[in-house]
Amino acid sequence: MKITLLPGDGIGPEIVTATVKVMDAAAKKFGFALEYDHQLLGGCAIDAYNDPYPEVTQKSAKAADAVLLGAVGGPKWDNVDPSIRPEKGLLRIRKDLGLYCNLRPMKVSKFTAHLSPLKPERVENTDLLIVRELTGGIYFGTHNEAAMVDGVETASDVDLYTRPEVERIARKAFEAAKVRRGKVTSVDKANVLAESRMWRRIVTEMQAKEYPEIELNHLYVDNCAMQLVLNPGQFDVVLTNNIFGDILSDEASVLGGSIGLLPSASLGDGTGLYEPIHGSAPDIAGQGIANPTGTILSAAMLFRYSLDQQAAADAVEAAVDKVYEAGYRTADLFGEGMTKVNTQEMGELVAKAL
Amino acid sequence: MKITLLPGDGIGPEIVTATVKVMDAAAKKFGFALEYDHQLLGGCAIDAYNDPYPEVTQKSAKAADAVLLGAVGGPKWDNVDPSIRPEKGLLRIRKDLGLYCNLRPMKVSKFTAHLSPLKPERVENTDLLIVRELTGGIYFGTHNEAAMVDGVETASDVDLYTRPEVERIARKAFEAAKVRRGKVTSVDKANVLAESRMWRRIVTEMQAKEYPEIELNHLYVDNCAMQLVLNPGQFDVVLTNNIFGDILSDEASVLGGSIGLLPSASLGDGTGLYEPIHGSAPDIAGQGIANPTGTILSAAMLFRYSLDQQAAADAVEAAVDKVYEAGYRTADLFGEGMTKVNTQEMGELVAKAL
Ligand SMILES: CC(C)[C@H](C(=O)O)[C@@H](O)C(=O)O
Ligand SMILES: CC(C)[C@H](C(=O)O)[C@@H](O)C(=O)O
Repeated sequence: MKITLLPGDGIGPEIVTATVKVMDAAAKKFGFALEYDHQLLGGCAIDAYNDPYPEVTQKSAKAADAVLLGAVGGPKWDNVDPSIRPEKGLLRIRKDLGLYCNLRPMKVSKFTAHLSPLKPERVENTDLLIVRELTGGIYFGTHNEAAMVDGVETASDVDLYTRPEVERIARKAFEAAKVRRGKVTSVDKANVLAESRMWRRIVTEMQAKEYPEIELNHLYVDNCAMQLVLNPGQFDVVLTNNIFGDILSDEASVLGGSIGLLPSASLGDGTGLYEPIHGSAPDIAGQGIANPTGTILSAAMLFRYSLDQQAAADAVEAAVDKVYEAGYRTADLFGEGMTKVNTQEMGELVAKAL
Repeated sequence: MKITLLPGDGIGPEIVTATVKVMDAAAKKFGFALEYDHQLLGGCAIDAYNDPYPEVTQKSAKAADAVLLGAVGGPKWDNVDPSIRPEKGLLRIRKDLGLYCNLRPMKVSKFTAHLSPLKPERVENTDLLIVRELTGGIYFGTHNEAAMVDGVETASDVDLYTRPEVERIARKAFEAAKVRRGKVTSVDKANVLAESRMWRRIVTEMQAKEYPEIELNHLYVDNCAMQLVLNPGQFDVVLTNNIFGDILSDEASVLGGSIGLLPSASLGDGTGLYEPIHGSAPDIAGQGIANPTGTILSAAMLFRYSLDQQAAADAVEAAVDKVYEAGYRTADLFGEGMTKVNTQEMGELVAKAL
């Protein structure tokens, strides 16, 4: 099976290298073959091709069974032309591969819960999945850059959804809830936005017609931002649009005590893309101290959703648990009584635990 | 001085009645006269006039020096025509009075800090002010309700800002920072939105030209949603657009342990509007147990910003502190060793403490 590796910028290359060790070990153990194609995305691609998502990367990604991404961006590219900024590479690959469904599981790990900004009783047992629409909404509506309109400098963006876009992402949320705790919370701003009113109506219709066994409730995005802090354990699947998903998933990501362990999957009808939710951390790049766990767990999602290798996915997750249980930690999570390891050692330990 | 009172729905009437006791006591003590005009807004106005913001309310508000609002909405009006929903009344009065500047101070009260969902060390010393643009952006751009476009059901909303809109709200933030800790964090999504790119450019220009003494930094909204939970103490003034302000101010509001104490002010060039940040709480309406403190502190903001009665504002805030210090609490904050009081008693106690 073909995997396009996009290590990207900052700590990206290190965490992807460590993760490949785990993927190789899993492939060996479960008897499948992985073929890697290394390509550039983001800042490194700007440096090489003056394009954050060059054609050679596009071709490789489209031909692959799945894409594993490290992270993109960094201060080095802060002043490049806005049209080729590193994030543009990310937005373009999402659109190009039709990755309309972003899955961000946030299960509080017992290994990091004590680091949570929340009081323990508020956060324990939290196990939620944010299903974010990723190729529509205000991200991909028309962007009218600042210009004079009737003599006044004006800029605007269009937040647009169509019925098929809402239906396909809602379906992903309902299906995910089926194999979880059977509850979907759809988040919108239907008291203000037309887009949200349509969204709420379609989601409500679908639940009634196709998913009567799923419990559906609706929350306004402002209330959801509150509830995530007050009582994150109330959520099972959270379904939302692109911009609200961006905000809420980042908010949710810090509740468990570390973003270093959190994976994500971006799915469409073809190749899926997998990446840790943290950034490229340029300040610690090249020091070998980055935590590859989020990337390793993203590889587990890759096995599950793109390669249909459920056993390998489960095994990688169990191996991570085992290594943490044994007290190994990278610098970010190191504490008394633990054994400090570097990025590559963490990868090797998980590979061995497989 | 003329005050329009809009008690609204749910617990609105009770908390406004309790607050009027405090306002009267302050007026007496500081030698000014208040004349009240009671009008309807929200659900009660729908019941009476089939209009959440009837003309008689409009006239009264425009003629007043300030408006004090309780809260609007409730399940009773969940199924009224969307065009006359209670929230529409709120949105229309904001636009009608030109209330472009929403101020939401969030200073963690020592009387509620122990109830915070955050660990004490994360939240203590938090004292931030969210300055939210309130009459522009996606709230007031064109709302295209669901309709067939090229054979596909489509709905959209336009997020639009003009230079004068950005300048006037940014000015409020910079001016507020001057009399606080001198720091403004401007929150946007400039890596995606054209509106945000213009916003960031204008705010940056203004700081350089007019407010060199103010420290300015920029955060993406997703990062800000994280940072509010991780380290709310880092913020002084947070400047943001209408929709991001809606989400972030609700998120911030729960960090201090109770939303019952938080006031807000909505300012324009004419009459200002003041209201607690909590909702109409229909479940406890009419029981006399609601906490009027957020409304009382909103009245303090009213004295400060609309009536230029600084001494009265300070005195009301000090009186609230004194009553809490003495151990009086409404049911929501009641605990061991405290004295439970009802809504009106709380108002009377604060009035007496003046
Ligand atoms: C980098 C940025 C464009 C991106 C987004 O807003 O989608 C990021 O925040 C994310 O959530 O993956
Ligand atoms: C009721 C609603 C329209 C309103 C808003 O979104 O502005 C409310 O959430 C607020 O923040 O005052």
